[in-house]
Amino acid sequence: MNTAASNLLPKKVTEAIKSVVGVNPADLHEPEFVGNEWNYLKDCLDTGYVSSVGQYVDRFERNLESFTGAKHAIAVVNGTSALHIALILAGIESGDEVLIPALTFVATANAVTYLGATPHFVDSERQTLGIDAQKLKNYLQSISKMQGNTSINRKTGRRIRAIVPMHTFGHPSDLTGLIEVANEFNLVLVEDAAESLGSRFNGSHTGTFGKLGILSFNGNKIITTGGGGAILTSDTELAMRAKQLTTTSKIPHKWEFRHSEIAYNYRLPNINAALGCAQIENVEFKIAAKRELYIKYYEVFSKIEGVHLMREPNGSLSNYWLQTLLIDDPSLKLRDEILEETNNAGYRTRPAWNLLSDLDQFGGSPKSDLTESHQLMNRIINLPSSPKLARIVTD
Amino acid sequence: MNTAASNLLPKKVTEAIKSVVGVNPADLHEPEFVGNEWNYLKDCLDTGYVSSVGQYVDRFERNLESFTGAKHAIAVVNGTSALHIALILAGIESGDEVLIPALTFVATANAVTYLGATPHFVDSERQTLGIDAQKLKNYLQSISKMQGNTSINRKTGRRIRAIVPMHTFGHPSDLTGLIEVANEFNLVLVEDAAESLGSRFNGSHTGTFGKLGILSFNGNKIITTGGGGAILTSDTELAMRAKQLTTTSKIPHKWEFRHSEIAYNYRLPNINAALGCAQIENVEFKIAAKRELYIKYYEVFSKIEGVHLMREPNGSLSNYWLQTLLIDDPSLKLRDEILEETNNAGYRTRPAWNLLSDLDQFGGSPKSDLTESHQLMNRIINLPSSPKLARIVTD
Repeated sequence: MNTAASNLLPKKVTEAIKSVVGVNPADLHEPEFVGNEWNYLKDCLDTGYVSSVGQYVDRFERNLESFTGAKHAIAVVNGTSALHIALILAGIESGDEVLIPALTFVATANAVTYLGATPHFVDSERQTLGIDAQKLKNYLQSISKMQGNTSINRKTGRRIRAIVPMHTFGHPSDLTGLIEVANEFNLVLVEDAAESLGSRFNGSHTGTFGKLGILSFNGNKIITTGGGGAILTSDTELAMRAKQLTTTSKIPHKWEFRHSEIAYNYRLPNINAALGCAQIENVEFKIAAKRELYIKYYEVFSKIEGVHLMREPNGSLSNYWLQTLLIDDPSLKLRDEILEETNNAGYRTRPAWNLLSDLDQFGGSPKSDLTESHQLMNRIINLPSSPKLARIVTD
Repeated sequence: MNTAASNLLPKKVTEAIKSVVGVNPADLHEPEFVGNEWNYLKDCLDTGYVSSVGQYVDRFERNLESFTGAKHAIAVVNGTSALHIALILAGIESGDEVLIPALTFVATANAVTYLGATPHFVDSERQTLGIDAQKLKNYLQSISKMQGNTSINRKTGRRIRAIVPMHTFGHPSDLTGLIEVANEFNLVLVEDAAESLGSRFNGSHTGTFGKLGILSFNGNKIITTGGGGAILTSDTELAMRAKQLTTTSKIPHKWEFRHSEIAYNYRLPNINAALGCAQIENVEFKIAAKRELYIKYYEVFSKIEGVHLMREPNGSLSNYWLQTLLIDDPSLKLRDEILEETNNAGYRTRPAWNLLSDLDQFGGSPKSDLTESHQLMNRIINLPSSPKLARIVTD
């Protein structure tokens, strides 16, 4: 594409967004409270159960289990804490390396460091925006060796213990490929499904393929509990340990306080779970709206040269949490011009995260070639994605 | 006291409780939502601001500042996370020892371990139920040495870095004595004021004497946010760091994601802060009720031989969060008989925590002589303490 054409893109993208969402300003993602939210919150106040006692935490966990098909869901205070506990239960120890995409939210890497382990950054692919399994396989073949059943990084000498794919903007990563890599190198698979509630891969819910998976219900997610998250697992023993570790490991007793191990206060309060119970009742409705919004955006963006709208990967059903535009030209300058123009017009667009491998605090972490991640970072723009935008009628 | 008299105590205590709180069952501590709780929660839903955006977090922090007199209050997701961050900001490093009472909730010790530091358990005193400052001073003189400005445990060789007094059941610890010890041994004072919102020592609010202090708003506390906590400090730089560390250290930018250091997701959601804003409007009312309840209990328990009601220490004003009965006879058997009898009668009483030094996970931690803590553990029974109980009229 020549420069002249590129320079028209910011305006064209802005016009395209306007043609879908209308002339009014649009946030990146707004929550909606159109169901039983108020009834359930009011019930918490009326009964006095807002905190660690009350029915909504159990109920929300059972709701999550039936919606995702996970055998066990353990509600916690946010996605980061869910990942922290999931990594402990996956057997990550101080000194281990954990493979994570460089292109993810900082929480994925932070949680690894809480255990004294080191994030090891790997490349993503255009097709899914998640870890490139084939490239990871080749990479591990070149940099690791097996010692017994353990994969060792030949350069650092550290054990490589787990892969944590993140299902970016709701699009499932290549789980078939990643499971193959995990098996070949004896790595534990822990899925960061913070963004992908409702997204399925080959018919099964994201977060249920790994030994453990995690969800987030932050305010910008497809459903929200204010702040909240959950751990998913099919392993009953791990589920019981997850509950213990997130609730100070108190040994049940009618009055005594005894705690069996060092643990955490990651309990989701009843009032936040109440919000979750109301929100999940409408999740299918929201996903449908988001998928419809994708079609609306597709209709306009397919006519614009120089950009492509991210589509759910083959074999996947995506919740389309954040609609994603990929600019053909991987120049940061063009990306920032589009961000500037669209935000100035009142449409809250945003780029992907800066690669975590480029942050000072992770400067010493090992990493593979990250060519595609860098390109994606320069090419990605998230568009206004609230479910309500699908219902706007424009001329 | 002879055994025959002791054996009458469980019944006498039960009758005494009944004479104060009436014949109906009474919880240990119930929250009350009698103010603007509904309005503020509804406002969150109506505006869509339930999570990290919204006015209530700021407002709750300013409310806490004006109520406690702390220069800065930083709201977080619970008391444990507040303590975790406060300890980081106090300069605790992996390998350090932190002096804490053996008689406290497990969170105090857990938070120390999150930093790779070791809890060092010290004895409490009858007068305050908090750390015995004089005994601590003697103990440190015998087991530590100064290396330059640093206090070193001569036995373990580790640096002793901080004292974390906990203001038990709302009664302020001996802050005068503890500040003196902190100065003599160059220790940082971090106050665990999880239970003492509204309690003052020499006229100033607990949690404002140390370099940092923390509060909790768990469901059983004097005010609740469902789950929540706060960090208090008069140091503006530490306050800014506390905000950064609890909100993933994101560098403010209109769309970019950059994070300056490894950090945490300990943000209090707006919806929980909204509850806090309503709750704190009534805190004085609740404290007054609790102080009145103390007087009612005092009237009946002062007539019973073999028990004493815990009274606020001299020079302190206590929030009387949990009313506390001290049995004269330090026998676990008698304590448990009273717990059994009162609970069977529908009155939720509970003992103090088992000493943390007796838990397996802290078995390797250093400790001073804990004679008084052991005695207190055997002697303490918390009584039903809800503010509403002060308003019950009995014959």
